[in-house]
Amino acid sequence: MSPPTSLPQVFRAIDVIRKKRDGVELSRDEIEGLVKAYTLGTIPDYQVSAWLMAVVLKGMTRPETAALTDAMLHSGEVLDLSSLSRKKVDKHSTGGVGDKTSLVLAPLAAAAGIAVPMISGRGLGHTGGTLDKLEAIPGFNVNLPVVEFRRVLEICGCAMIGQTPEIAPADRKLYALRDVTGTVESPYLICASIMSKKLAEGIDALLLDVKTGSGAFMKSEKDAIFLAELMVETGERMGKQVVALITDMDQPLGNKIGNALEVVEVVEVLRGEGPEDLRTLCLELAGWMLHLGGISSTVAQGKQHSARLISSGAALDKFRQMVELQGGDARFIDDAKCLPQAQHTIEVSSATAGYITAMQCEQIGTACVILGGGRERKEDSVDPAVGIVLHKKVADPVAAGELIATIYYNAEAQATRARQLIEASCVVTHDPPSSTRPLIHKVIGKSAEKP
Amino acid sequence: MSPPTSLPQVFRAIDVIRKKRDGVELSRDEIEGLVKAYTLGTIPDYQVSAWLMAVVLKGMTRPETAALTDAMLHSGEVLDLSSLSRKKVDKHSTGGVGDKTSLVLAPLAAAAGIAVPMISGRGLGHTGGTLDKLEAIPGFNVNLPVVEFRRVLEICGCAMIGQTPEIAPADRKLYALRDVTGTVESPYLICASIMSKKLAEGIDALLLDVKTGSGAFMKSEKDAIFLAELMVETGERMGKQVVALITDMDQPLGNKIGNALEVVEVVEVLRGEGPEDLRTLCLELAGWMLHLGGISSTVAQGKQHSARLISSGAALDKFRQMVELQGGDARFIDDAKCLPQAQHTIEVSSATAGYITAMQCEQIGTACVILGGGRERKEDSVDPAVGIVLHKKVADPVAAGELIATIYYNAEAQATRARQLIEASCVVTHDPPSSTRPLIHKVIGKSAEKP
Repeated sequence: MSPPTSLPQVFRAIDVIRKKRDGVELSRDEIEGLVKAYTLGTIPDYQVSAWLMAVVLKGMTRPETAALTDAMLHSGEVLDLSSLSRKKVDKHSTGGVGDKTSLVLAPLAAAAGIAVPMISGRGLGHTGGTLDKLEAIPGFNVNLPVVEFRRVLEICGCAMIGQTPEIAPADRKLYALRDVTGTVESPYLICASIMSKKLAEGIDALLLDVKTGSGAFMKSEKDAIFLAELMVETGERMGKQVVALITDMDQPLGNKIGNALEVVEVVEVLRGEGPEDLRTLCLELAGWMLHLGGISSTVAQGKQHSARLISSGAALDKFRQMVELQGGDARFIDDAKCLPQAQHTIEVSSATAGYITAMQCEQIGTACVILGGGRERKEDSVDPAVGIVLHKKVADPVAAGELIATIYYNAEAQATRARQLIEASCVVTHDPPSSTRPLIHKVIGKSAEKP
Repeated sequence: MSPPTSLPQVFRAIDVIRKKRDGVELSRDEIEGLVKAYTLGTIPDYQVSAWLMAVVLKGMTRPETAALTDAMLHSGEVLDLSSLSRKKVDKHSTGGVGDKTSLVLAPLAAAAGIAVPMISGRGLGHTGGTLDKLEAIPGFNVNLPVVEFRRVLEICGCAMIGQTPEIAPADRKLYALRDVTGTVESPYLICASIMSKKLAEGIDALLLDVKTGSGAFMKSEKDAIFLAELMVETGERMGKQVVALITDMDQPLGNKIGNALEVVEVVEVLRGEGPEDLRTLCLELAGWMLHLGGISSTVAQGKQHSARLISSGAALDKFRQMVELQGGDARFIDDAKCLPQAQHTIEVSSATAGYITAMQCEQIGTACVILGGGRERKEDSVDPAVGIVLHKKVADPVAAGELIATIYYNAEAQATRARQLIEASCVVTHDPPSSTRPLIHKVIGKSAEKP
């Protein structure tokens, strides 16, 4: 007989907490009930934080992860971009140092005929953020209302804004709680957070750039692959085409780190110039976006098409158009001095001769934060002008006294600390490194298996 | 070099949460910092509940458990009973069905010359609580202020009250949070909760009665032993003599369940009557209390001494004295009708002939709750008059139609449900049970190894 003291079947947070604690799989209804109640404010933070910790320590099944993503996605508005005839494809990076590919890819894919409705975040900790880079452009408005976002998209094919209050409010509330309760570090919660926000953009396909190495959140390739597989499967369960590239973040991407400096490098790449690693990764990612967007039947063709859009100037024109449509002063494209400039520079040189065998990437990112170019806490403001330009990368030979990096700064004390960190992060040895890490480690996703 | 972005070494709840999440042992300072800050209200519930869930899932080391107990103990007042020349010994039970031994033991040990400053709790769920039983006695005041508690102790040698606001406030706050966040079920947290409250009584020694079986919180003997060892070691680390008996709770203890009915059975035992299992356990526990209190050099001598105090009437006199000192009307000792009486009774009989091979003990406890004799929620009130009297116990033969139990009730519908539950809980088979469970499963503690 059933226990006589049982209550009627209503949603009780305590039951959901206990089940997760005991390793029992939660139903879609239970997860949806929890997310809905929390978003409405009918269950308290202290119950949700206990549940989050149970998720961190007990994990989630794939159906649970998809249900959580879906509940968070539908906690707010899902953009309906069905009026746009173009296929809608976005790219998301898990974050790194010097990763400015979004600013290249949005106009490049738009120039190819894809719609790119990109909603991005700010930098936190040692990693940079797309919104901070965009705001280094004088006048650029990342806070467009949805109606204006849609208008820019319709005219230009791409638009780049920050999260709006209407998009996935459950994620905003949950993330704030995770941040103060030690429950950020869970691939399941990271997946649901990323995927709920990206799928709220109303896209058809998503390209994920999951970073691995000393400058990434997922230091080990194993963890990066786990997260990538989780996000791809979650997206597929929700009816979207999703491909993930595991890419290297064991040294900074490109040569420039810092918001205005990175915008300069974006223009270089859109001109067919710039550092080789950044150019190569941008073309690879663009190739995938064009393939996912149905513009090119293979990734290789997508890369060729993208290269042509760069050499023709079409991609740079598209970038200029987007900047102007979002209120930016586009003169920096022809004259970098129109971007914020740091007052001073100092140089970092190698003490010994040999080869650069490592550049501890998180330390270099932290050096940029110390200069004021990033934020340790959400409420910190960012100095767009400061940053670091690398003159050497891993495997490069270096002479004693030769320049490794230039620091752009506005405050002496910060520059001294940043310089120490950069010196400590660069390892110079007598022999060159026996092997170098690939730029692309792995490709994950069903769509990736197509010929 | 140390990370340049690190903050000065101050207590940060997030660090303590992360360490526990990652399975790193916390220092005494970290645990004390958390408990102090929570008691003062300077860290929020949502951080503490995340930490509690991490403790539930990651456990605690013995030094961590002792540090938590100590911090909770010192969150409030620790009674100073050093002015009492008698040795102070208390007994604590982890709770069960029909467990009324405290009401026998306090006066019995006091009659032997021990001081018993007993601070008890109320029943919750299927288990009864000492305070509820005491309050079945007309006029009995369990809410004495500390000064009056001390006075009764000095005069009588024993006093029985509920928790005061001054005792272990951290436990009250933590328990309320655990109750709503699925973090009750952790031996480490249970240990710290019990031991902090008991050691705040200012006692020299503590006897623990850890129940195991279908009516106990720790259903398995393994879990009961684990908790008992944890509590004994924690008490010893804090300089107290602690012994734990693992005792059986696979069927109710004694024959009477329900507050006033149990008080009647207490008087029976103090008169040298009453059911054998209850009498035997009371003498065993009393033997240990007298041994721990230095009255008897062995447990066996303590039992003999206790038996004499019962047959001489000294224990019952002490009980009467305590009842009167705490404002109770002691006439019930000579006339049970002076206790609250239920209006009706119904009988539960066996459908078949054979032997009783099991009495699902939690179900019988729940039957008493349904009658109104216990509480499902803390805020529920209790009917002292209702309950169950068992006429058969496990291993007893029973004829078809023979009486198994009598239900004392005040509401018809509740009696019907309780009857169904009791019928379902009693298993009658053709053959007698091949083995019966011992009353005392195991004794744990250094003091237990003395000759």
